[in-house]
Amino acid sequence: MPVSDFDSSIKAENIGGEIYRLAEELYPICRSITGNGVRKTLNIISKHISLEIKEVATGTQVFDWTVPREWNIYDAFIKNGKGERIIDFNRHNLHVLNYSIPIHKKVTLEELKNHLYTLPDHPDWIPYRTSYYDDKWGFCLTHNQLENLEEDTYEVYIDSSHNDGYLTYGEFCLKGEIEDEILLSAHICHPSLANDNLSGIALLTFLAKLLQKIRHRYTYRILFAPGTIGAITWLAHNENIVNKIKHGLVISCVGDSGGPTYKRSRIGNADIDRAMEYVVNRFNQQAVIEDFSPYGYDERQYCSPGFNLPVGLLQRSKYGKFPQYHTSADDLSFITPENLAESLNIVKQALYILEHNETYINLNPKCEPQLGRRGLYKTIGANQGRDDRQTAMLWMLNLSDGTNTLLDIAERSGIDFSTLLEVAALLEKNLLLRKQDLLPKGSS
Amino acid sequence: MPVSDFDSSIKAENIGGEIYRLAEELYPICRSITGNGVRKTLNIISKHISLEIKEVATGTQVFDWTVPREWNIYDAFIKNGKGERIIDFNRHNLHVLNYSIPIHKKVTLEELKNHLYTLPDHPDWIPYRTSYYDDKWGFCLTHNQLENLEEDTYEVYIDSSHNDGYLTYGEFCLKGEIEDEILLSAHICHPSLANDNLSGIALLTFLAKLLQKIRHRYTYRILFAPGTIGAITWLAHNENIVNKIKHGLVISCVGDSGGPTYKRSRIGNADIDRAMEYVVNRFNQQAVIEDFSPYGYDERQYCSPGFNLPVGLLQRSKYGKFPQYHTSADDLSFITPENLAESLNIVKQALYILEHNETYINLNPKCEPQLGRRGLYKTIGANQGRDDRQTAMLWMLNLSDGTNTLLDIAERSGIDFSTLLEVAALLEKNLLLRKQDLLPKGSS
Amino acid sequence: MPVSDFDSSIKAENIGGEIYRLAEELYPICRSITGNGVRKTLNIISKHISLEIKEVATGTQVFDWTVPREWNIYDAFIKNGKGERIIDFNRHNLHVLNYSIPIHKKVTLEELKNHLYTLPDHPDWIPYRTSYYDDKWGFCLTHNQLENLEEDTYEVYIDSSHNDGYLTYGEFCLKGEIEDEILLSAHICHPSLANDNLSGIALLTFLAKLLQKIRHRYTYRILFAPGTIGAITWLAHNENIVNKIKHGLVISCVGDSGGPTYKRSRIGNADIDRAMEYVVNRFNQQAVIEDFSPYGYDERQYCSPGFNLPVGLLQRSKYGKFPQYHTSADDLSFITPENLAESLNIVKQALYILEHNETYINLNPKCEPQLGRRGLYKTIGANQGRDDRQTAMLWMLNLSDGTNTLLDIAERSGIDFSTLLEVAALLEKNLLLRKQDLLPKGSS
Repeated sequence: MPVSDFDSSIKAENIGGEIYRLAEELYPICRSITGNGVRKTLNIISKHISLEIKEVATGTQVFDWTVPREWNIYDAFIKNGKGERIIDFNRHNLHVLNYSIPIHKKVTLEELKNHLYTLPDHPDWIPYRTSYYDDKWGFCLTHNQLENLEEDTYEVYIDSSHNDGYLTYGEFCLKGEIEDEILLSAHICHPSLANDNLSGIALLTFLAKLLQKIRHRYTYRILFAPGTIGAITWLAHNENIVNKIKHGLVISCVGDSGGPTYKRSRIGNADIDRAMEYVVNRFNQQAVIEDFSPYGYDERQYCSPGFNLPVGLLQRSKYGKFPQYHTSADDLSFITPENLAESLNIVKQALYILEHNETYINLNPKCEPQLGRRGLYKTIGANQGRDDRQTAMLWMLNLSDGTNTLLDIAERSGIDFSTLLEVAALLEKNLLLRKQDLLPKGSS
Repeated sequence: MPVSDFDSSIKAENIGGEIYRLAEELYPICRSITGNGVRKTLNIISKHISLEIKEVATGTQVFDWTVPREWNIYDAFIKNGKGERIIDFNRHNLHVLNYSIPIHKKVTLEELKNHLYTLPDHPDWIPYRTSYYDDKWGFCLTHNQLENLEEDTYEVYIDSSHNDGYLTYGEFCLKGEIEDEILLSAHICHPSLANDNLSGIALLTFLAKLLQKIRHRYTYRILFAPGTIGAITWLAHNENIVNKIKHGLVISCVGDSGGPTYKRSRIGNADIDRAMEYVVNRFNQQAVIEDFSPYGYDERQYCSPGFNLPVGLLQRSKYGKFPQYHTSADDLSFITPENLAESLNIVKQALYILEHNETYINLNPKCEPQLGRRGLYKTIGANQGRDDRQTAMLWMLNLSDGTNTLLDIAERSGIDFSTLLEVAALLEKNLLLRKQDLLPKGSS
Repeated sequence: MPVSDFDSSIKAENIGGEIYRLAEELYPICRSITGNGVRKTLNIISKHISLEIKEVATGTQVFDWTVPREWNIYDAFIKNGKGERIIDFNRHNLHVLNYSIPIHKKVTLEELKNHLYTLPDHPDWIPYRTSYYDDKWGFCLTHNQLENLEEDTYEVYIDSSHNDGYLTYGEFCLKGEIEDEILLSAHICHPSLANDNLSGIALLTFLAKLLQKIRHRYTYRILFAPGTIGAITWLAHNENIVNKIKHGLVISCVGDSGGPTYKRSRIGNADIDRAMEYVVNRFNQQAVIEDFSPYGYDERQYCSPGFNLPVGLLQRSKYGKFPQYHTSADDLSFITPENLAESLNIVKQALYILEHNETYINLNPKCEPQLGRRGLYKTIGANQGRDDRQTAMLWMLNLSDGTNTLLDIAERSGIDFSTLLEVAALLEKNLLLRKQDLLPKGSS
C-alpha cells in the first residue's frame, strides 16, 4: 500500500473557509433531539457527502431509554399588555426552552418569572436550556430583558408539538481495505450554537469528503446524531458492529481558539489515546490531556462499561469551561476558519498515525546491516550531529523486533512519526524491514 | 446491611476527654515487658471492655525467643554519704534502668557513673532506658542531677526481682458478620510515657467500646501486649488465626499534635495502606506516608517475611523524631484530648472504608441508564457545575464493571468515599447496581 | 566463597599512573580498523596480559558485512611549490584521512581543497576523519594551515596500501567458578586519540591484570577490537558463546574529568544497568544516566535486536559532547591518571556488585530472630540513631524471602551494598540466612 496522504493532501487554509461556510449555513436552524431541525441539518450535510438518514419511531425501546415523541416548533413569543412581542422566537431560537410544551395564556409577571431563564453574570446573553424528558414550558432571555419587565399581563405563546414521530440521525460509511472501523461522531441536537456543535458537524462533513479522495485501510463510520439518545439509539441498533470499532473520536467545540483538549477513552491507553496525545502535544504547548470521566458528550455512551470502546473526545476549549458555552454568545463570531482548519489537521494527523501504525520486523537482526553499501549512510565519519534520517533508520532497525509499532518507536526515540514511516519504506525497499503482517505465519 | 455509622456515631469532642482520662489513670504505673505493672494496666482496661488476659510462663519457647523471667520492682534509690535519697524511684519510675537486676552496695562516684544514663542535650529530662536480655543494673537521671554529684560514697539500692513467672497480655475479640479479621495492636510495656504508648492503649480501649455499639462486618481483634516479645508470643500461639487477618494497624504515639504519620505495611499497597493513605491525606496537609521499613513497633513482627500481614502503623509524630521520645518529657502534658479524638477519628474513618469497600456491578452496563425518569437527575439542562451526587452516580455506574471497589472509584474520581457509598445505596435501591458478592455465581 | 576484594585490593592512586603510562606508550601508533597499527597495539597489551590475537581474512562474510582489505600507511605529505612538506603524516597521524587510498600527483589549490578537512571553530586543531568503505583520499589539517595556503601547485603523496590481509583483534579470557560470562569491550581502531579510546584500552588491560589476582565467580571475556566491524566479526564467529554473556560493558572515553555517563543497555533494567546506576549515582552528583539509543559504540552491535545482550556503555564525558572529541586536542593532556583510576574504580565496584548479588533466604522467617543472644544487637535500648549494621541486618532478614537480591535490598533500603554483604555473611554464619542457590531444591 502506498503511503497515503492524510497529512498533506489539502491545504488547511482553503478547507477552513469551506467548513466555516457550512457552519454558517446550518446556524439559523432550530435543532433539538428530534424533529425537522435535525432533518434539515442532515439534508444540508447530504449535499456534501452521501449520508444514510435513519428514522427511529417514537416509543422504540433503546436499552434503558425510549425514543421520545418528536418535537417541532413553529412560533413562540411573549407579548406585553400593549400587544408587543417583547420576546420573539423568530429573533433567536434560544428564546424558547428547548422541547417546551405548547402554551397559550395570559399570565402575571410573577407567574411568568417562574418560566424564565437568564444569565445574571452575562446580562446581554441568552442562555440555552432544555427540558427533554419533563413536560415544561419556558423562555430564555437576556438578564437585561428580564430586568426591564414591568408589572403587566403578558401573553405567552409557544406553538410547538409533541407527536409520535421519529428520532432522526445520519450515518456516513466508507469502506476501507479492512473491515476494522474508525468511528467519528458529532452531536447534532443543539440549536443556534456555533462551536457546540456546528464546528464538529462541519468538520466531520469535510473530513468525510476528504476520506473519499485518499487511500485508507480502515473503514470509516461517521455519525451525525442527537446527543445521548442518538448515540444510545445507534448503539442499540448496531450491537453487531461494535466489535469492529478499533478506534473512535467524538468531535465537539472545535472552532474556537482554545486548547486543544483531548480526553482519553475509558481504556486510557488505547491506540486512539496514544495517537491523539502524540498529535496534540506536538501541535501546541497549551494542549491539555485529560483522563476519562463519565460526563461530557457521547463518549459517555461509547465508553459505558458494557461497551468500553476506545473512543476519546477532541475539543478546543473544554465544554463548560468557556463562558460562551451554552449561551447566545456561542455564535458564528466565536469560531474561525483557521481554528476549524487546525482542528481538522489534528484529526487528520491522528488518523494518519492510526492508518500507518504498523509493526515491522528487522530482517537482518544480528548486528547492524551495512547501510553504507546500500547508499543509506554518509561516508565521511565526522563529529557533527547525525542526520535525522540516519538516526531514524537506526532506531527502526533496532526496535523492529516485533514488539514495537511505529508509534512505540516514535514515542521512545523522539523522532517524528512521519520520518520513521518514510525510512521504514526505504528500509523495506532495501529488504531490511518487512511489515509483520506480511510475514508468513510463524516466522516472527 | 445498613450503612454503619463508624463515621459519626460518637462526637469526637466528648470521647477525647475520656481517652485522656484513661491515659491519666495508667500513667503512674511502672510497666515493663512482664510483671505486675502490665497486670495492673490490663485490669484497668478491663473496667471498660471485656478483656481476655493471657499469661504465658517463663521459659516458653516462642519462635526464636524464650519468654523471659518476670521482672518486678518495689523500690530503688541512690543515697549520698549523708543518707539522702538523691535519686528515688518513687519520684519517677524512669529513674531505674528497666529490667535492672537487684543491687545493694556502696560505690564510688566513678563506679556509679558507669551505671548512670542522662541526656546532655536536655539536661532537665530523665531518659528511658531498658536492658531486657542482658543482666545489668543502672539508674537514669537528669543531666543536671549528674553534674551535681560530688566525690562521695553512694549507696545504690534496687529492690527488683527476676523470677519464673509469666508474660501477660490482653486480647479483646468481637465477632462480626464474617470471620475475616481486622487486627489492632498497641504495645503496653512502657512505664510512665504518655504518648508512647498510653495514647495508643487508651485509644484502642475506647475504639473497642465503640465497636460494641455499631454494626460491623469484620471480626475485630485488639491486642494489648508488650512490644516485640508480646507480639512474637501472640503470633507463636495463634498461627492458625493469622490467615484470617485481612487488615491490621499498630497504634502508637497518637496523642501529640504532629503528623499524622502512616507507615505502610510491607506489602505496600494492601487495602489498609490505601484506606489509611486516603484518610490521612484528607485529614491533614502535613500528613506523612512512609514506606515500610523493618524497624519501628510490632509491625516488625506482623510484617516479618514468614507472616507478611497487611499491617501498617499509625502515629502522629514519628517515634524517635520528636525530642520528648523516650524521656520524662513524654508526660501527660504532651498529649491532649483533642489530638486523641482526632486520631480515633482517623482510625474510625479507615475502618469505615474497609467495612464498606464493596465491588458493585452495573446491572445496566450498556449506555447510561435514564436517571431522569427515576428522579435521580435534575431536569433543566444548564451550564452550572454538576451536582456532586449526580457526578458520583455517573462514576459509580461507569466503573462498576466488577474490577473496581468503592475505594478504587474514590481514588480515580476524586469523589468522597462516603458520597459514593451513599449513591451506591441509591442506585442499588433503583436496581441499577448490585453488590458483586450478592450476584449468583458466574453472573459477572 | 569468601568475599572477594574487587573493591579494595589495589590502591587507585598507584594504578592510575600505570594505566596512563600504557596509554602514553600506545599514543603515537597510527591505528585503523585493520593493519599493523592494530597489531602493534595488541602486542604492547600482550606484554601485560595473556592475549589471544585473532586474524580474520579479508573477504570473510560476517553477517551483513565483509571484512575489508587491510590498510597500511607508510608516509604521506603535501609539498608546496618550493618542495616543503607543509603537511606531514610524520608530525601527526591524524593528518591523513584514515583508510585513504594512495595518491601521488600535482594539484592546484582549488583541486586540493576538495580533499582537505578542517575545524573552523577550533582553528588550531586537526580533525579526525575516516573513509572506510568509500575509496577516497584526503588530508586533515588545522584551519589556520588551510587559510595560509596560497595559489600554488601542490604535490600530494599518500603511500598507503589496501591489500588482502586480515582484520585483527585481541581477546582475553579468564575462567571463573561458573561458565556465565561478563563481557568487557573497548574499540582499538582510533589513531592518536587519548580519551577515545586509549583510555578504555589501557583501563581494561589493567582490569584484566587485576582480575587474575582475585577470586571471581564469573568468567571474564575482554575484547580489544576495532569498532563496528570488529564487534560484528566477533559476534559472527562466537554466536555459540553469546548466551553465556550475563552482563557486559563497553568502555570508552574514561580518562577525562567529565561524567561519569552511563548509557543503559537496550533491555534497560538489566542487572548491569542497575549495578552501574547504583555505582555511578553514588560516585558523583553529576553522574548522567541515559536510556539506550542505537548510536554510540559497539553496544550498537551487542544490543542489536538479534542479540539484545545486557551490555551498557561507560564513559566520562559523552562522545560527541566534548569539543575535543575526534580532534587532535584529544591528546595525552586531556586524560589524567586520577580520572583513569576513578573510572577503573567504578567498573570494579559494579563488578563487585554483580559478583556478589545473591538472593538470600531467611531461615527464621516468622518474626525477627533474637539478635541480642547472638551478640548481634546492642543491649541498652535508647533513642539514638540505630547502628547501621543493625539496621542492615533487619533489612536483610525482612526482605530475604527469595524474591530480593542484595541489590534489590540496597536499592529499597538505601543501605550500602557492601554493608549488606557484610551483614549477610554474619547472619549466614549465625545460621539465620542461607544463599538461595545453596538450599536443597524445592525448599524455598
